[in-house]
Amino acid sequence: MKKAFLLLLAAFAALTAPAQTLHSPAHKLTLSFRLSPAGEPTYQLQYGAKSVVQASRLGVLLQGQPGFDKGFTIARIDSSRHDDTWTPVWGEVKSIRNHYRELAVTLQQPAPQNRQLVLRFRLFDDGLGFRYEFPEQPSLKYFTVTAEKTEFNLPADHQAFWMRGDYDTNEYLYSTTRLSEVSPATARPTPEIATQTPIAGNAVQTPLMLRSDDGLYVNIHEAALVNYPAMALLVNGAMHGLTSQLCPDATGAMAHLQTPAQTPWRTVVVADNGPAILSSKLILNLNEPSKMVDTGWIRPQKYVGVWWEMQINKGSWSYSDVNNIKLADTDFATLKPHGRHAANTANVKRYIDFAARNGLPGVLVEGWNVGWEDWFGNWKEEVFDFVTPYPDFAVNELQTYASGKNVKLIMHHENSGSVTNYERRMDSAYRFMKEHNYDAVKTGYVGRIIPRGEHHDGQWMVNHYVRVAQKTAENRIMVDMHEPVRPTGLHRTYPNWLANEAARGNEFNAWSSGNPPEHETILPFTRLMGGPMDYTPGIFQIKLDEYAPQNKGKQVHTTLAKQLALYVTLYSPLQMAADLPENYEKHPDAFQFIRDVPVDWDDTRILLAEPGDFITTARKAKGKDEWYLGSITDENARQQQVRLDFLTPGQQYEATIYADGKGASWDKNPMAYQIRKQKVTSKSVLKLQLAAGGGVAVSFKPGK
Amino acid sequence: MKKAFLLLLAAFAALTAPAQTLHSPAHKLTLSFRLSPAGEPTYQLQYGAKSVVQASRLGVLLQGQPGFDKGFTIARIDSSRHDDTWTPVWGEVKSIRNHYRELAVTLQQPAPQNRQLVLRFRLFDDGLGFRYEFPEQPSLKYFTVTAEKTEFNLPADHQAFWMRGDYDTNEYLYSTTRLSEVSPATARPTPEIATQTPIAGNAVQTPLMLRSDDGLYVNIHEAALVNYPAMALLVNGAMHGLTSQLCPDATGAMAHLQTPAQTPWRTVVVADNGPAILSSKLILNLNEPSKMVDTGWIRPQKYVGVWWEMQINKGSWSYSDVNNIKLADTDFATLKPHGRHAANTANVKRYIDFAARNGLPGVLVEGWNVGWEDWFGNWKEEVFDFVTPYPDFAVNELQTYASGKNVKLIMHHENSGSVTNYERRMDSAYRFMKEHNYDAVKTGYVGRIIPRGEHHDGQWMVNHYVRVAQKTAENRIMVDMHEPVRPTGLHRTYPNWLANEAARGNEFNAWSSGNPPEHETILPFTRLMGGPMDYTPGIFQIKLDEYAPQNKGKQVHTTLAKQLALYVTLYSPLQMAADLPENYEKHPDAFQFIRDVPVDWDDTRILLAEPGDFITTARKAKGKDEWYLGSITDENARQQQVRLDFLTPGQQYEATIYADGKGASWDKNPMAYQIRKQKVTSKSVLKLQLAAGGGVAVSFKPGK
Repeated sequence: MKKAFLLLLAAFAALTAPAQTLHSPAHKLTLSFRLSPAGEPTYQLQYGAKSVVQASRLGVLLQGQPGFDKGFTIARIDSSRHDDTWTPVWGEVKSIRNHYRELAVTLQQPAPQNRQLVLRFRLFDDGLGFRYEFPEQPSLKYFTVTAEKTEFNLPADHQAFWMRGDYDTNEYLYSTTRLSEVSPATARPTPEIATQTPIAGNAVQTPLMLRSDDGLYVNIHEAALVNYPAMALLVNGAMHGLTSQLCPDATGAMAHLQTPAQTPWRTVVVADNGPAILSSKLILNLNEPSKMVDTGWIRPQKYVGVWWEMQINKGSWSYSDVNNIKLADTDFATLKPHGRHAANTANVKRYIDFAARNGLPGVLVEGWNVGWEDWFGNWKEEVFDFVTPYPDFAVNELQTYASGKNVKLIMHHENSGSVTNYERRMDSAYRFMKEHNYDAVKTGYVGRIIPRGEHHDGQWMVNHYVRVAQKTAENRIMVDMHEPVRPTGLHRTYPNWLANEAARGNEFNAWSSGNPPEHETILPFTRLMGGPMDYTPGIFQIKLDEYAPQNKGKQVHTTLAKQLALYVTLYSPLQMAADLPENYEKHPDAFQFIRDVPVDWDDTRILLAEPGDFITTARKAKGKDEWYLGSITDENARQQQVRLDFLTPGQQYEATIYADGKGASWDKNPMAYQIRKQKVTSKSVLKLQLAAGGGVAVSFKPGK
Repeated sequence: MKKAFLLLLAAFAALTAPAQTLHSPAHKLTLSFRLSPAGEPTYQLQYGAKSVVQASRLGVLLQGQPGFDKGFTIARIDSSRHDDTWTPVWGEVKSIRNHYRELAVTLQQPAPQNRQLVLRFRLFDDGLGFRYEFPEQPSLKYFTVTAEKTEFNLPADHQAFWMRGDYDTNEYLYSTTRLSEVSPATARPTPEIATQTPIAGNAVQTPLMLRSDDGLYVNIHEAALVNYPAMALLVNGAMHGLTSQLCPDATGAMAHLQTPAQTPWRTVVVADNGPAILSSKLILNLNEPSKMVDTGWIRPQKYVGVWWEMQINKGSWSYSDVNNIKLADTDFATLKPHGRHAANTANVKRYIDFAARNGLPGVLVEGWNVGWEDWFGNWKEEVFDFVTPYPDFAVNELQTYASGKNVKLIMHHENSGSVTNYERRMDSAYRFMKEHNYDAVKTGYVGRIIPRGEHHDGQWMVNHYVRVAQKTAENRIMVDMHEPVRPTGLHRTYPNWLANEAARGNEFNAWSSGNPPEHETILPFTRLMGGPMDYTPGIFQIKLDEYAPQNKGKQVHTTLAKQLALYVTLYSPLQMAADLPENYEKHPDAFQFIRDVPVDWDDTRILLAEPGDFITTARKAKGKDEWYLGSITDENARQQQVRLDFLTPGQQYEATIYADGKGASWDKNPMAYQIRKQKVTSKSVLKLQLAAGGGVAVSFKPGK
């Protein structure tokens, strides 16, 4: 007690200075912290002489007790430095440096609360992370957060690349406007998303990408979202201020916590150029290291799947036309099949054959299990049981068949948002998987959440996603989540959590207004800041009219070459070759790139990147002196000049260039492509010609 | 289509009569059904010349579409008769006659809804059951009930034995008032119930017991509560009308249904005397028969338990004084034990020894598993894991020890209302039980429900309780639920669901204002109408002061003899001998009754019964010519004269009479008892002297 008292005195003595200042390791960024006269914690962030975040308040409000937002004195200040390098199980680079300066401010409220709050800031040369920490203390054990009031007051009316704030979906289109123009009215309408819960007011989701008129690139997001709801941002356009808006639970509360507790890290990645934003490892660094000892079973991979044919109305997830199923009462063997069920044994074998022929290790099968007859939109609890195949899907036969061809089937667990049902069946579902030699699962959360009143982005669901990552890990299962909360770098902690959808994927091109050509140039600056995306690129048959009458006018908004480039520009350790085998077989020369391109890398160079415009990325294959390059553009044709100085000096490479064909364009002539080979060295410069909505993919293999 | 049209015409033709009338098999009751001029369904019920329910409307309101409450025509009327007899797996009688007349009215709404609703009435000689049925039809597949408007308009201002309406607890004290006096102000205050969600207005729970001034006894409840919320009743005192009030989910909706669907049965049990109400099997008859084929493993039983010592502050559920536990992060072996942990191996062995010596098959152990340090009141999700014992509870050693003494340990699964946590751990919890030779579990739901916003009595929880009954049955586990929704006869369908608490049990006497002496005379007329109660009788050491300073003035509101009588008057196939072994060992003569009394019966005779006053019940042991009698009174001393004409004529019996001692009374001298033996025959009359708050228990064994 005496010791604590002395420390306290020392701390007060130290606090005559008006503000605490922290510099990033190379002094690129400066953080200032101070208390307002009302005892409100405030911070600001500078990039050299430029303001990134102006004085902004921090605070958390609690249920049934005074807030953690004012009336503070500083009880103690700790600062430290950290510099180490760690090796991810898989990723864009072989090793990652975690280099920051830390400031931990212990704030004290007077009696009767007598409570302490710790604000922890970690300042990197490429950005800031900070969080609220609630230490264990006599007057705070269990508590409920009713609001978090974290401000990001920006110095000017930046250009913003944003998506509407919503508690249940992140599959909106992006809008590009000034911050002051953010509003529901300027959001792009997306009536095709059935489960929307837009946040009132001018709310946007994170990662929010901003660009200032004086050349600053700022990305606001969060890291290590665990046991807390996701954060959206309310935009005060006139003041260009942002305030955190958490996702509520069914009772309107935000988070139920027990000390010691902490919020996720709030992150501000800052640079003076686009590529530096995409290269940042700040969010990964703020996540906890993995505790997994044996990771040998985790295998980044490409896969094909019985999937696109349902998206394009060629086949169906369901088995019969009955449209009012009660799972427990239905013997599916007695239903009359409608004949369009895609996940039938013969068709799955066709995919297994194709995967085996082309060295693709995985085959996803959707619609294999009973329940798809009326799976969607009914807020129904017992939709699927995750262990009962349709009568025409021969589990054991396919297990043997796939195994004989050295291919693994990938399990599909769509739960239609009925998460209570999924959780109570998870044990048996994973047991079923292991018994049948599956070691990867794609989960899906399409629909309103059950427990009713909860949201995809609330604390309860956040805990669920983490629970799935943990439980699959315990069972040595890799997982790919569709429709979860936006990722926040948790794949560092759970390296079996290979990828997420959590944004508008390629599938939207099949049955909605689609994704505009700029979409994939924004994704890395937004959604992918938090982690890999299972975007499902690789569509070769771009016009979709031919498949079914209801596809009239539908097409993927891309050129064929751009689809190849996406395997490099959109990083994921899990990449689908999404199109039908027969379409790849029509273009074996182009498909060679998909066969070749790795999903795990020793190095990554973001060569050119401007959100909404273009991205060019080069990556070095894991353990090999091979490089792969992807270059994509928005709706504008572009020439990109690329210096190959990333190649090993003195080594000659054969570059195979998969480019848009003459006269190609995403809307008029999307499938025209040309492939040429060229000898290059690290001194070469490649001139890449990108069609409107097009792209280029290049492989570099050492010359013999 | 043509056929349906003809049927419709025929139906219309039949409907020139103003009302449909149905008589019960022996014409004791008459039901009338008619449509109001606005097409509202209405019914009324007569008992001979006396009105039971006056014209009352029926209706269900739906979300996003017109209600099922008016605008109906009658499309079709079906009537039928039913008479069969079935054998319960266990119960108060050997066989049960199910004898009723049925009327099913198919109601039609015009276009554009074009919807049908079926009202099904079953009229027995002792009451009425009716329900709403929603057939599968083109315009109705998935729908949400926003309210049910079932009226019970009573003809006069009856005496009511009622408990306050609440979505989360049925552990209130009963009030006895006129219906017109029902209000929150006349409800008995029960601040000791931590989790209360009282329903606004003058709401009461079912079973609601009513007695008219002209001698009618009416009990209103429901049967077969499955996939629907529990029903409370809103009282219009001035009009003595009752209207159904369902328990809402987290979003305010009442029930999410899929056709074909039906509500539970709404039940009105009617008689002109108290004993006939208690003898009614109407609610059981309205439940579905069990589908279980092998029921040999289901064993009605008596048990002791490590339990009362915690209620009386002699021991503790918890192991240490740490009060802020995170389950996943805590190694309980490293905590400093506080030394009061009751569920330690040595103590449990003591209970096993006692059970073995006295032929009691079960030993419940509460507090065996980690998590009790801060289990309550924090709305916390991960409280227990149901598989990890405290360091001083040796699972394997106790398994062997109990098995060697032919005793079974009874598992305890308190989940503190965190049902999502329980559901996701149920598989492993039941597996753990089977591995360690447990075949019965007591569950507990103390606290606010998670999923947050749900209630104990809502549809989601109702489905949960049924799920537990099903899952335990699949695992050949018997179940006893504490703090569930009030029961509705589902033990017919799930005979492994032996008992519930679901009302204010004996435990309240240990740590609250307790249960007044009349309490156990009301329970059979209310709570027990739905099924057996695990009331935990048998307290011999009635004054509780001696155990701990905080018990000052606490006592069970009973005499010792009354505690014995409860084993007969409160039917349950699962009966605890709730007191400490050492207290039974002080009174081996009185304890002999508990050793003797069965928990399964061939016959039951309710001899005397007046709610709030007294009950005398005689029961014949299963498969034996032995009878047991229990007689209890409220706070008034009484003499009860009992004709023993239920005994086998011509057979002499030795009656052992466990009676209140001279000068006994519940408050002044509760432990005075006397035991005498007497030869009796079916012609004998017993005069029983009951002390204030006292009782008498009698065993009748054939004389040698």
